[in-house]
Amino acid sequence: MTATLSRPESSDATDRHRLSVVGGLAALSLDAMASVAYGPEAIVIVLAAAGGTGLGFTLPVTLAIALLLGDLTLSYRQVIAAFPDGGGAYGVSRAHLGRRASLVAAASLIVDYVLNVAVSVAAGVAALTSAFPELLPYTVWLCLGALAVITTVNLRGIAESARAFIVPTAVFVGAILTVVVVGLFRAGPVAAVAAPEHVTNLQTIGILLLLKAFANGCAALTGVEAIANAVPSFRKPRVRRAQRAEVALGGLLAVMLLGLAVLIEKFSIHPVDGVTVLSQVTAASLGDGFGFYVVQFSTVVLLALAANTSFGGLPVLAQLLAKHNNLPHVFALRAERQVYRYGVGFLAITSALLLIVADGDMNTLVPLFAIGVFVGFTLSQIGMVRHWRRDRPRGWPGKAALNGFGALLTGLAAIVVTATKFAEGGWLIVVALPVIVLAMEWVHRSYRRIGERLELGRTPAPPRPDRSLVVVPVHTVSRLTRDALAAALSLGDHVEAVHVVDPDEDQAGFVDAWELWHPGVTLVQLHDERRRLGEPLVEHLRKHADCHVFVLIAEVEPEHPWQRILQNRRGAVLARALRRRSDAVVCRMRFRVPG
Amino acid sequence: MTATLSRPESSDATDRHRLSVVGGLAALSLDAMASVAYGPEAIVIVLAAAGGTGLGFTLPVTLAIALLLGDLTLSYRQVIAAFPDGGGAYGVSRAHLGRRASLVAAASLIVDYVLNVAVSVAAGVAALTSAFPELLPYTVWLCLGALAVITTVNLRGIAESARAFIVPTAVFVGAILTVVVVGLFRAGPVAAVAAPEHVTNLQTIGILLLLKAFANGCAALTGVEAIANAVPSFRKPRVRRAQRAEVALGGLLAVMLLGLAVLIEKFSIHPVDGVTVLSQVTAASLGDGFGFYVVQFSTVVLLALAANTSFGGLPVLAQLLAKHNNLPHVFALRAERQVYRYGVGFLAITSALLLIVADGDMNTLVPLFAIGVFVGFTLSQIGMVRHWRRDRPRGWPGKAALNGFGALLTGLAAIVVTATKFAEGGWLIVVALPVIVLAMEWVHRSYRRIGERLELGRTPAPPRPDRSLVVVPVHTVSRLTRDALAAALSLGDHVEAVHVVDPDEDQAGFVDAWELWHPGVTLVQLHDERRRLGEPLVEHLRKHADCHVFVLIAEVEPEHPWQRILQNRRGAVLARALRRRSDAVVCRMRFRVPG
Repeated sequence: MTATLSRPESSDATDRHRLSVVGGLAALSLDAMASVAYGPEAIVIVLAAAGGTGLGFTLPVTLAIALLLGDLTLSYRQVIAAFPDGGGAYGVSRAHLGRRASLVAAASLIVDYVLNVAVSVAAGVAALTSAFPELLPYTVWLCLGALAVITTVNLRGIAESARAFIVPTAVFVGAILTVVVVGLFRAGPVAAVAAPEHVTNLQTIGILLLLKAFANGCAALTGVEAIANAVPSFRKPRVRRAQRAEVALGGLLAVMLLGLAVLIEKFSIHPVDGVTVLSQVTAASLGDGFGFYVVQFSTVVLLALAANTSFGGLPVLAQLLAKHNNLPHVFALRAERQVYRYGVGFLAITSALLLIVADGDMNTLVPLFAIGVFVGFTLSQIGMVRHWRRDRPRGWPGKAALNGFGALLTGLAAIVVTATKFAEGGWLIVVALPVIVLAMEWVHRSYRRIGERLELGRTPAPPRPDRSLVVVPVHTVSRLTRDALAAALSLGDHVEAVHVVDPDEDQAGFVDAWELWHPGVTLVQLHDERRRLGEPLVEHLRKHADCHVFVLIAEVEPEHPWQRILQNRRGAVLARALRRRSDAVVCRMRFRVPG
Repeated sequence: MTATLSRPESSDATDRHRLSVVGGLAALSLDAMASVAYGPEAIVIVLAAAGGTGLGFTLPVTLAIALLLGDLTLSYRQVIAAFPDGGGAYGVSRAHLGRRASLVAAASLIVDYVLNVAVSVAAGVAALTSAFPELLPYTVWLCLGALAVITTVNLRGIAESARAFIVPTAVFVGAILTVVVVGLFRAGPVAAVAAPEHVTNLQTIGILLLLKAFANGCAALTGVEAIANAVPSFRKPRVRRAQRAEVALGGLLAVMLLGLAVLIEKFSIHPVDGVTVLSQVTAASLGDGFGFYVVQFSTVVLLALAANTSFGGLPVLAQLLAKHNNLPHVFALRAERQVYRYGVGFLAITSALLLIVADGDMNTLVPLFAIGVFVGFTLSQIGMVRHWRRDRPRGWPGKAALNGFGALLTGLAAIVVTATKFAEGGWLIVVALPVIVLAMEWVHRSYRRIGERLELGRTPAPPRPDRSLVVVPVHTVSRLTRDALAAALSLGDHVEAVHVVDPDEDQAGFVDAWELWHPGVTLVQLHDERRRLGEPLVEHLRKHADCHVFVLIAEVEPEHPWQRILQNRRGAVLARALRRRSDAVVCRMRFRVPG
């Protein structure tokens, strides 16, 4: 996940408002910390298929993941030094691997932003229902409710401050470390641990099972790139501080994961429906009293905030992609509130769909998560190798080797994860990534074609005035018509009033009233035996193809929105017909009527 | 129900295309004939509460209804003579009872149009599921599907011809008469009649039960006014032909209702879940072979066509109400296809809701039907009494007496029906009628106020040109901008290009490109620290309150609708802000780009 912090930053922010090591760690580690809530469970749930023996491999599998984490941490330490302006997977691959690879990275990031929301919300609700089992039947509704709250907050625009995240992150880390330390010194579990369910059809421990457990557990590695993406948010010296935060994050994460793995084995924890592994470990270590609820609540809060980071990240990424013409330009539109509402809406809708399809179950969603993450990791590592080879700073072969090793490991992990998870939903990601990339390619090609037609980047011929004709559709003799004609006459010398005759209505009455009024404007009467409104006008305008035609439509605009139902839609029907079938400029004038 | 035939009629149609007695009977009796499918069942279902003894009263109750039918037929014979231009309940009460009463009549007609659709569709599906019981679980879906088909056909616009209705109506009438005649000559039922379910808690036969059965059965009287509404559709001599058709309709309907009632008693038919009474009678009379399916299919077809008549009638009535400023003017909008799509949409949505609420069960809907019908009957009869008293033609006291007696009977029936049906959904109609009337009053008042403000009906001062300023928001230097400025320069002398600066974008680049281009138009740069698009422009325009301001927004319009997602929505955002918060005329120019 790229971080959310590019948003509050304004170019003239003083250094004092920027992040210290601790602040950056708190603000940027939400995703990574959150994965402590579902990572260990992802391992246990696979190993439990082989019963107690299988669960005995929790620690070795976690160790392997911790090693990969160590490598990633060091790799990103180097990314920070090389891209002090922030080096997300998209930025690094765009700089070093070309457009196509950068689109793959972008697609993997988009997929992961969406999955991060879905997984975090599902895991947060799982923490809640572990503490309050009576809420279990409402899992999906709780998920969608939480998502709705997060979406609403983000649509209204939040001026979030990194400092706001320090307290919940600190409480969560402190709580988890307490669980680990207390648990290590206990002889046995305080609260009763659920007896293992009778497991039939035990799998033997095979390399495949271990690979699967490893792949599943890799979900715990999501989020370690966030600090590397947000180097500009740190205080000077930026690179040093960001590097220290990155290393601290890797260290803390490794300690928590390994500590929990030790406790899982020590207390013989196994997966139980409706109770998360983390809450079982907590209960075994701290009992089911006050401490238990502190851990559960801090988990819920942290997961909600982790879901929120996607809402900071995806819209910013989408905006960048839109500016590079890879996504529709609406994603770069910030409109009246300072919010990229299209990005927020896209994120909310897709993650809601995922939650509904997965029935709000985090263990269905977690396996999908790691695939996109590793694709992004691998691409940015390869990009780094290219970077070192091109710039060749002192000691570059060692640095390139570290990143290359990282690319190898994460690339292998990507293959393992995809292969082992393919049937369990992994295919969805395998399909989604190329589809997103192709869609972005199509958008890019379309914009290039439009840009060529618009002669963007060239200096066009100067604008030259032409003859103009202002056509005013009239329907009654009234102030509305008078104001419309007055506006038209102020514009140009050639004004024409056009009356599309409705055979059901009293024509003579209108013509008489018009002649009595004598407004000094030519009146053209158009007849259509098929009673159409727009088509006769479109036909009529064809005769004036030699000049700029403006059609001025006057409409009554009631003050109150609920009075809109009183508007006749003639103006809208005309405007749509003109827009579709003529080149006339449609001008709409509103005549305000107090309600 | 008023008839649908005002639609295909065009003012220059020759007499040859108009209706003969038989044609008119077929074309205009759909509603009335359709009630044969649910009227007898409505009686039986009430009487069955008193067991076999209760069902013995089917014939007397039907006789009472037939007497009321006779009175109504004669009354409408007089309406035809008095209103040869077509005298619906709305028209008659508008002419003779004042606006408020005409609105009550209109509301009752609206309610009945909606109920006619719901009841006909439900009854048609009931006829279908009686023949094919395996379809029973899908009742609601079948109803909504049928409604969707009818709605789609009507939205596309149908050039229906009265002749198209002759065959299905004739087949239905012939089939029912065959059932009656064959049944009368049979000694006993051919097919086995279902044994009565064990009925506990029998009600005794009381006056209340009989009144209820009468009230329920009155649903069979819906539709007898259709011919009176459509006199202009008949061949000359119109009044005579229409009167003959009306009498023939009353006679046929009475024969069918009474014949079925006799058979119901003869074969001891009682209500069975999932099988209509009509299909039981048919099976008892004709057996369950070919004849049975002919009756069932002709019933389904007839009911579908009966539902369709509301789609001809309600939109025309709504259009008339809209022209009289009682409904929003959109109901009078026929747009491109010759269809009042708002009326059709309103009818489809409300009747779909009714079908969903009633779970597609016709016996839930039928009781609601009679209330509105009798309100309309009574109002038009009272209007007729007023009519005779005012015009005083030869023999007017007798005519007034007949209509007065009719008003008394139908008024009493309205009270009986409302009282006995109040708890079973009748309250819905009792609430809906005044709500609709009040809504129409509100619409009328609002339009009067708007009309005063617009000085409708007066001759306004002549339009006078004023100073004008054309503002062109610019964003790039491109052909789009050039074309927009060229159009603006063709309009007026005062043209101003306005650039709302996006702090995220390269400003200097734009200004340099502009100065290099040198289009000869003043460039105003607007800054907004809150990055808003519309507000800075609205603020800027406030400075030009002394002249007509036109804002010309140029937009790229891709050829294919699915390329719309590529449009940036800046134009739409600007247009909305200007519409809401300024008096500027918003002109939108489309720059077409081939796909």
